[in-house]
Amino acid sequence: MDYSIKIIPLGGLGEIGKNMMAIEISNEIVIIDAGVMFPDEGLPGIDLIIPDTTYLKDNRDKIKGILITHGHEDHTGALPFLLRDITAPIYASSLAKGLIDVKLKEHRGIKDATVIAINPGEPISLGVFEAEFFRVTHSIPDAMGISLTTPIGVIVHTGDFKIDHTPVDGNPTDLTKLAELGDQGVLLLLSDSTYANVEGYTPSESIVGQALNQVIANAEGRVMIATFASLISRIQEILNSALKHGRKVAFVGRSMVNNVNMALKMGYLSAPEGLIVSIKEIDTLPRAKAVIVTTGSQGEPTSALVRISSGFHRDINISNGDTVVISATPIPGNENLVSRTIDNLLRQGATVLYDKIALVHVHGHASQEELKLILRLVKPTFFVPVHGEHRHLRAHAELAQSVGVRDSNTFVLENGNVLELTQTKGHIIDQVPSGAMYIDGRKIYDEYNALLKDRKNLSRDGVLVLIIDRNQIEGTDFISRGFIEEEELSDIRESILEVIKSTLAIASTERHNNSDTKNLIKDKVTSFISQETRRRPIIIPFISG
Amino acid sequence: MDYSIKIIPLGGLGEIGKNMMAIEISNEIVIIDAGVMFPDEGLPGIDLIIPDTTYLKDNRDKIKGILITHGHEDHTGALPFLLRDITAPIYASSLAKGLIDVKLKEHRGIKDATVIAINPGEPISLGVFEAEFFRVTHSIPDAMGISLTTPIGVIVHTGDFKIDHTPVDGNPTDLTKLAELGDQGVLLLLSDSTYANVEGYTPSESIVGQALNQVIANAEGRVMIATFASLISRIQEILNSALKHGRKVAFVGRSMVNNVNMALKMGYLSAPEGLIVSIKEIDTLPRAKAVIVTTGSQGEPTSALVRISSGFHRDINISNGDTVVISATPIPGNENLVSRTIDNLLRQGATVLYDKIALVHVHGHASQEELKLILRLVKPTFFVPVHGEHRHLRAHAELAQSVGVRDSNTFVLENGNVLELTQTKGHIIDQVPSGAMYIDGRKIYDEYNALLKDRKNLSRDGVLVLIIDRNQIEGTDFISRGFIEEEELSDIRESILEVIKSTLAIASTERHNNSDTKNLIKDKVTSFISQETRRRPIIIPFISG
Repeated sequence: MDYSIKIIPLGGLGEIGKNMMAIEISNEIVIIDAGVMFPDEGLPGIDLIIPDTTYLKDNRDKIKGILITHGHEDHTGALPFLLRDITAPIYASSLAKGLIDVKLKEHRGIKDATVIAINPGEPISLGVFEAEFFRVTHSIPDAMGISLTTPIGVIVHTGDFKIDHTPVDGNPTDLTKLAELGDQGVLLLLSDSTYANVEGYTPSESIVGQALNQVIANAEGRVMIATFASLISRIQEILNSALKHGRKVAFVGRSMVNNVNMALKMGYLSAPEGLIVSIKEIDTLPRAKAVIVTTGSQGEPTSALVRISSGFHRDINISNGDTVVISATPIPGNENLVSRTIDNLLRQGATVLYDKIALVHVHGHASQEELKLILRLVKPTFFVPVHGEHRHLRAHAELAQSVGVRDSNTFVLENGNVLELTQTKGHIIDQVPSGAMYIDGRKIYDEYNALLKDRKNLSRDGVLVLIIDRNQIEGTDFISRGFIEEEELSDIRESILEVIKSTLAIASTERHNNSDTKNLIKDKVTSFISQETRRRPIIIPFISG
Repeated sequence: MDYSIKIIPLGGLGEIGKNMMAIEISNEIVIIDAGVMFPDEGLPGIDLIIPDTTYLKDNRDKIKGILITHGHEDHTGALPFLLRDITAPIYASSLAKGLIDVKLKEHRGIKDATVIAINPGEPISLGVFEAEFFRVTHSIPDAMGISLTTPIGVIVHTGDFKIDHTPVDGNPTDLTKLAELGDQGVLLLLSDSTYANVEGYTPSESIVGQALNQVIANAEGRVMIATFASLISRIQEILNSALKHGRKVAFVGRSMVNNVNMALKMGYLSAPEGLIVSIKEIDTLPRAKAVIVTTGSQGEPTSALVRISSGFHRDINISNGDTVVISATPIPGNENLVSRTIDNLLRQGATVLYDKIALVHVHGHASQEELKLILRLVKPTFFVPVHGEHRHLRAHAELAQSVGVRDSNTFVLENGNVLELTQTKGHIIDQVPSGAMYIDGRKIYDEYNALLKDRKNLSRDGVLVLIIDRNQIEGTDFISRGFIEEEELSDIRESILEVIKSTLAIASTERHNNSDTKNLIKDKVTSFISQETRRRPIIIPFISG
């Protein structure tokens, strides 16, 4: 039988194949990752964004398993939604399994999910596929790439990765394994493109550890460090430094406290008895004996750090001589929130170190030289850059060509593209539903939902409800929210009543039904108001009598 | 008489003294700049933000003049609003005057504004103040700083500036003048802090000119360059390169075309006959003979560049071999819009150069070494960093101390602070109204306006109008926008009616009036819905019968 493989990056916003992808061969599918994205200010009311799961739902019987590369939300967060529609075993590292188990427990109605903890090198049999994870370094421990042996060849997927020769947990990216795979022949490489337009090498996490150690060694007062709760390695380095310099450490913020507790229990973090103390206890210590690790590095308005920065935190305050480190980079869209937080911390008297002025953060993705190294080791016949927006994939494709991958064997895909590969060639043969689904409370909406459009319009110019009694138009009630002020509205009230009167007269002459009449009033009043006030509120007429 | 001076930075969001400031001595005030800010996505429906003008209105009789440092919107855009309340002569460079005249003409009701074109070195007598402008380089031609001679000493204000030894227009920052002023003794320096946390020197605009020249020399197809309409020097460099390499230039985008026409007329731009052609004409030329300069470098959704990137522009398309240069840096908040535009241009087949991968933009503000140079030349007794957010002012204050300004003579202010200076000391003695005013259509609102809050709430969860007839509660009309879908609403309709019934029963027992009853229904329905749907739409009950 002649096999061919289908490669299908699915969903997310902008980034291709990041949150989820499917690999399919005859009647069998393996899913790689199932993650979420977080909405920006342009999507008010939306809690989460997940990839479109239509294709997987429609092919649920083919699905053999879900392979999770690491425990970050953008690779695991959609599992509770995906598992509403499909049933398949989930394979993940111990740490990722720990995080997924917590997540699944929070969602009602997901029962019988099978999450299997798996180590690098353990074979997983998934129908016609043979899968095996290999270690990579990333900004969370226990991150892994995947090699997938299929009847027509081996597929290697890097997952999110960087090459860190001196990782804090002692587990570097398994270059030996990649070299072996390359030596045996790899049909297809799928590789992380997040930083494919950045030259050189991404620095080791240990560089940040050294910088934080300097701060902890030299600070006069308290040291407060804001970072991501999943950056377990960085937290370990902070614990090590605190121990060395005679300070105690307290953790603040729900996700930080939960992650630290889980990591301690599972052995991903280690700290001698007494090093970690409660926030109440740290408050009783001299300021030079305290380190506080907190969430809020993105300036999230309800986070501990932001409340501390405005002097509103119940337990923690800032004094002159304290040092605050924002050990993170603002995600695009969060810059203003982060800047405001830095300014307020300075106003409280802290010295503040942040990414623009000190090396207090490195990211978890490979830069150009690392990507070329992987390409040279794996020597794939075909190459599909993934994890990145279009310009990153293009940059990665150019890198691949520069190290010898054939131009015609490199495919820059869009989400939903179906790339069919044989041993000798590839074509995009189809397009399946992709794009984003929006989670709002308990509901899931698609991109073009009228509700989301209404909200956008409401946010711009508000709403005006007109409760019209046909028999007494003068008595029409005007109810508005977010449109204009009472006084301004009463200035144009009479003119709007005139518009309503004349419109009702036309409607009655032309024998419109109630619904047509309402639409006509809506149009006429909208155009009058837009002329008069330069605004376009949503007009809702209600006619009685 | 013992004089003292008051320094009052006014308004804006975050940046201190950027958009406007007042300098006051006994009963006389000079205003420096009167600019706007542009709202981000968090302020839907708002057109512009201006500084609070209350203090100036309350002291209108004291105002002797308004000095404009340069023609950018964030230094001139609030003039039409300020001039509604005060009358005073405006002094500006010829180019800034040209831009201001256009702006004032667009606003009805501003008559008799006096805008006086002034050259560097010309003395201006403003009551007790003697003002004189001096040249600085910035990202618009004809930018100037100010020296203000007062009875107790000289004040130097740099305006927005950088030190460019090879400016395109041949007019460098007047270091000689600054040295002379410093030699004679300066009481107070107010200096641009925008990039005070950036080490080293800001590169010369001519570096970008060289990079663009390379692109124009080597591109196979069309070259399209997106930049700010006010970057006249960069436009001149593009014209020079196009001429050199046998290409014609067309301009696209309303503000680009207007600015270029004005700059040509006033002599700030020069181009031989026939070099500049219309967009229709450029479309008839071979692609290798064309350069198009356009707006849209911030990814503005209605801009020409964005329409071109999605293939929706009437006159201009992209072909393989074309090169697009985004000759700008995204303003914080615009990153995602710009990234999406780059991706779409790549998808259309263009090669795209942007700030992250090529040196195609430099900014117009001084970095640390330049700021130290100014401080060393001016040698002020007192120093007030301005133009920047709090962390930038703090960084600038530290620079000043590192080059010998006394710690106790350096003042990091907040907008609205009144700093009183004598020849020997300074104190913050008062706080005047400051902060932002929001322009919405024809109205101006303050920060805490209920309308803006309503819009924010509406955008999150929409609105539900309940039209209740006391005598027939079953027949209550439900009208919603942006809340939940019809079907979902009809699922909870019966339960909401129950809530209304029981609430009306309570209200009638407790003899509530209509308004109290409405509020009670609003509260009860809100809490029921929030429990049931996890959302909090704005509930508007209307009760008849």
